Amino acid sequence: MSVDELIATMGKDAKVAARQLRKVARSQKDEALELMAVKLLEREEQIKRENARDLAAAEDQGLSDAMIDRLTLDTRTIQAMADGLREIETLPDPVGQVTGMWKRPNGLLVGRVRIPLGVIGFIYESRPNVTVDAASLCLKSGNAVILKGGSEALHSNLALVDILHEALLESGLPQKAIQVIPTRDREAVNILLRKEEDVDLVIPRGGEGLIRFVVEHSRIPVLKHYKGVCHVYVDEFADLEMASDICFNAKVQRPGVCNAMETMLVHQAVAEDFLPSAVSRFQKAGVEIRGCPQTAALISAVKPAEAADWPAEFLDLILAVKIVSSVEEALDHIERYGSNHTEAIITNDYRVSQRFLEEVDSSVVLVNASTRFNDGNQLGLGAEIGISTSKLHAYGPMGLEELTTTKFVVYGNGQIRS
Amino acid sequence: MSVDELIATMGKDAKVAARQLRKVARSQKDEALELMAVKLLEREEQIKRENARDLAAAEDQGLSDAMIDRLTLDTRTIQAMADGLREIETLPDPVGQVTGMWKRPNGLLVGRVRIPLGVIGFIYESRPNVTVDAASLCLKSGNAVILKGGSEALHSNLALVDILHEALLESGLPQKAIQVIPTRDREAVNILLRKEEDVDLVIPRGGEGLIRFVVEHSRIPVLKHYKGVCHVYVDEFADLEMASDICFNAKVQRPGVCNAMETMLVHQAVAEDFLPSAVSRFQKAGVEIRGCPQTAALISAVKPAEAADWPAEFLDLILAVKIVSSVEEALDHIERYGSNHTEAIITNDYRVSQRFLEEVDSSVVLVNASTRFNDGNQLGLGAEIGISTSKLHAYGPMGLEELTTTKFVVYGNGQIRS
Repeated sequence: MSVDELIATMGKDAKVAARQLRKVARSQKDEALELMAVKLLEREEQIKRENARDLAAAEDQGLSDAMIDRLTLDTRTIQAMADGLREIETLPDPVGQVTGMWKRPNGLLVGRVRIPLGVIGFIYESRPNVTVDAASLCLKSGNAVILKGGSEALHSNLALVDILHEALLESGLPQKAIQVIPTRDREAVNILLRKEEDVDLVIPRGGEGLIRFVVEHSRIPVLKHYKGVCHVYVDEFADLEMASDICFNAKVQRPGVCNAMETMLVHQAVAEDFLPSAVSRFQKAGVEIRGCPQTAALISAVKPAEAADWPAEFLDLILAVKIVSSVEEALDHIERYGSNHTEAIITNDYRVSQRFLEEVDSSVVLVNASTRFNDGNQLGLGAEIGISTSKLHAYGPMGLEELTTTKFVVYGNGQIRS
Repeated sequence: MSVDELIATMGKDAKVAARQLRKVARSQKDEALELMAVKLLEREEQIKRENARDLAAAEDQGLSDAMIDRLTLDTRTIQAMADGLREIETLPDPVGQVTGMWKRPNGLLVGRVRIPLGVIGFIYESRPNVTVDAASLCLKSGNAVILKGGSEALHSNLALVDILHEALLESGLPQKAIQVIPTRDREAVNILLRKEEDVDLVIPRGGEGLIRFVVEHSRIPVLKHYKGVCHVYVDEFADLEMASDICFNAKVQRPGVCNAMETMLVHQAVAEDFLPSAVSRFQKAGVEIRGCPQTAALISAVKPAEAADWPAEFLDLILAVKIVSSVEEALDHIERYGSNHTEAIITNDYRVSQRFLEEVDSSVVLVNASTRFNDGNQLGLGAEIGISTSKLHAYGPMGLEELTTTKFVVYGNGQIRS
C-alpha cells in the first residue's frame, strides 16, 4: 500500500470508529481504560522487548543520553502509564453534558450539549508514554485518534497500541478508535495534514520546529503553543521573601519545560533590596543571570543581556533580569516579548494585582504563585493533553472538555419561521 | 505604500487597538454603538452618494440585478443598520464573565474569565450592511477588526467606516479598532492570511469558492461553513400535517440560504400517505422535485434524482426526495451526504427522537421544528456573526460569546510547585 493509500484508509477508518464512539456510554469507556491498565502491567516483558529494539537503534545512531532516557520504558514508566489510565477512568465524562438550555418565546426549547470532536491527529516526538496518555484522553472524550510519534519510538508505540487494541476488542469498542501511523515516512504527516474531510483537529507536541511545520502545512485546525517565554514581575509592593521563593521555584524546579520562568522583571523601588540575595541564590543553583544595564550596574557578577535574550525561551538554567520603573513598563515588556503562555505578579497591592490580572493577555495569569502551575493537573482539569496559546477553542491547559465541542439540540412542537 | 506595507501596518495598528479594547467597560462600548446609530441616520445622504458610485460602476460592469440589489443602500437598509446597532447595544457584554472558579487543595483559587480574541479578520462579499454588523459585533466583544468586503462595495464600505470612526473618536475609543482594507488588490487578502502574529481569527462569509480560498491560504484559525446540505427526516411516527408544514417552511420560506432544506427523507411506512399531497404543495409553489426511484414510481410527476443531487446545496426551489426503510437508513444517508449544518426529524416517537438528537453529528439538530431556526437570533444568542460547521471553537451559530475565549486567572498566596 502506498503511503497515500495508507493514510487515506486510516482517515476513513478513524471516521467510522468516531461515529461509533459518539454514543458509547461512560461505563464502557472506563471498562476499556481499566483493561488497558491491567494489560499494560501484564505485558511488561513484551513492551520492554519492543522498546529494546528502539533503544538499540537509537544507540547505533548515536542519539544523546537525554534522548535515550526519554525513549526508555522501564517498570516504573509502565506502572506510571497504568496509573495514568486509572486516573482518567476516575474523571467525569464530558460527553453529553448540557452546558445550557433555555426556552424561546415561540416555545422552542434550545440546549447545548457536549459532543466529541470526532477524529484527532496527534503528532509528537520521543516519549512513548505519550502514546498511552493521548490515546486514553481521546478515548474518554469519545474521539478517535491517529497517532504519529517519533520515528525512533516506532516499535515501542506499535507494541503499546497492540495492547490497547486488545482492551478495545474485549470491551466491544472499535479498534480503529486508536491507530498508530506504522511508517517512518515523513510524507505521512504531510498527507494527514490535508485530510480535512476526515480529521477534525491536529495537536502537535514537541519542539518549535515540529509545531511550525504542522501549522504551515495543515488545512485542519491546530491547537498548539510555540514556546513559553514566561515572566514573573516582582512589584514594588511584593513580599520579597515570597518573591524570592516563587521566582526560584519558577526558574529552577524544572528549567526545561514551557512554564518555567525565562525573564524576571523587578520594580526599581525594590531592586536594591531584592536582587542581590535573589541573584546569589540563583547563582548558587547554577543559574546564569543576564541582566539589563541597571541590573549589571547593581550586581557586578551579572552578565549583560543582549537583545536576543528578551524574547528567548532558554529552557535551561539561564535567566534574563530587567529592572522596570513601573507596572506599566512591566506590562509593556510582557506585551512585547511574552508568548501568551504564563505570567505571574508578586504583589500585595490590590489595585496592581487586579490590573495585572486584567491586562496581561496570557493563557494563565497568576498573583503570588509560581508560573509552574500552568498545567492541567495543577489547575484542576484532571488531565492535560497539551497547552494552547492560540486563543481559538482553548487557551491554556487542555483537558477532556477541550477535546469536545457543543452542538445545539432543539425540541419543537411544530414551529416554523415566519 | 505597497500592499505589503499597508497590510503590515494595519495588522500592527489593529493589535495596538486590541490591547486598548481589552479593558474598555461595557458602558463605553455601548455609547459608541449608540453614536454610530445616530450618525448613520444623520449621514444618510453621504452614504447614498458613495453607494451611488459603487452602483454606477456595477451597472457599467453589467452586474446582475440580484447583485445590484444586494449592493444597494437605501433609507430602509440604513435604518436597519441603525436598528441592528441598537440591538447589539442591548446585549450583555461577554467580556469579564467568569465561567467558573474553584479552589485547589493547595489553596490556589483558579478561575476562567472571558476575554476578547484580539484581532479578527473578516472577509466577505457584496452587502455593505455586513460591514456595520461585523464591526459592531467585534467592538461589543472587545475585538479589533480588519474588514475586507467585496471590491464592488468599496466606496460604500469606506463611507460607512468613516462614520463609525467618528463615533469611536467621540467615545474615546481607538479608531484602529475598525479598519477597512482600502484597496481592491486581491493580494491584500493573501497577505492578511499570513499575519498570524497579529490576527487571531479569520471569518470568511460568502460563496464556497471564497471560503475554500481562505482555508487554503490561511495560517490563522478560520471559522466557517462551506455549505448547508440540510435534511428533514419524516419518520413513520410523524404527525403528517406538521411534517408538511415544516418541510414546506424549510424549503420555500427562503430557499437561497444555508439553513434551507435540500433533501427530504421519508419513511416508507408513511410515503404513500404523505408524499402525494406534500409534493403537490411543493410543486404548486414552483419547487422542482428530484426523487429516488421509489418516489418516482409513486408520483409520476417527479423527475428522477441523479447521484449529484444527494450532496447538492441547491439554494433554489429544487428538492431531492428519498424514501428510506428505517431511521438507520436516514441516519446513514445524513452521515454520508450531510454537511454537519442542520438536520431535523419529524416524529412523535420518544425513542426515535432521542436517537436522532444523539446520533446526528450536525451543529443544530431539531425535533419537530424547521431547519430555518439555525440562526443566532432565532436560537437566542442575540446576534450572529456567522455559522460554523467546523467543530473547533464554535459549532453552529456564532454570537458574541463565540468572539471571545477564556483565560485562567489564579489567586495565590505564595504557592510553589514541589
